[in-house]
Amino acid sequence: MKILESLKFDEAGLVAAVVQDAASGEVLMVAYMNREAVARTIETGLAHFWSRSRGKLWLKGESSGHTQAVREVRLDCDGDALLLRVEQKGGACHTGYRSCFYRRVLPRGEGAETSGEKVFDPGTVYG
Amino acid sequence: MKILESLKFDEAGLVAAVVQDAASGEVLMVAYMNREAVARTIETGLAHFWSRSRGKLWLKGESSGHTQAVREVRLDCDGDALLLRVEQKGGACHTGYRSCFYRRVLPRGEGAETSGEKVFDPGTVYG
Repeated sequence: MKILESLKFDEAGLVAAVVQDAASGEVLMVAYMNREAVARTIETGLAHFWSRSRGKLWLKGESSGHTQAVREVRLDCDGDALLLRVEQKGGACHTGYRSCFYRRVLPRGEGAETSGEKVFDPGTVYG
Repeated sequence: MKILESLKFDEAGLVAAVVQDAASGEVLMVAYMNREAVARTIETGLAHFWSRSRGKLWLKGESSGHTQAVREVRLDCDGDALLLRVEQKGGACHTGYRSCFYRRVLPRGEGAETSGEKVFDPGTVYG
């Protein structure tokens, strides 16, 4: 796949991927992709990532059903980051929030407060 | 600064930072921050990053004047990524584009096409 030649994978073989809601513009999550995750995402139209903690390829939503249909993939100037503009089913975050960025940092960095939309109950979804 | 205790810096001492235009929602860039970059950003209200290529702290816009006034900092579920919602002066990208994500991947990954707003001439800005 030609686009893989334009990407600069790091020493771990990864590029960063920012996932954004294509309709609202909300930033949903940041994850990482290896060559296979990029290729599978483009081939299938569903976001795939490399799980650094589990050391395996991961179809987003494989357990929860909360898949991401990819409407556009964009590439940054350095080729070491991708932007996926998606239609998110359910919520992107395993905690039940629509976005993983559901906490806002308080003034002077004195902690954080929750500020985000909870869209599912993780206890029900993940059993 | 209390928020630093909620962050999970990687083995290189960094977290990923996604920068988003606070008004339009456009994703402008991805960069990395160490503890000092996070603290300086929150203290000064101007985005600071750690340059992995130059190995130094970097005030975004220090050469170009294209600073980022930070309106909100958000934290992801894992604490290993930040979202900065900013007012961007000029363009975020050193190539002259408003966003570093000025290339769109073509169908089937057959390369990429330019699709972004050029807002300055890098030859003039960087001399």
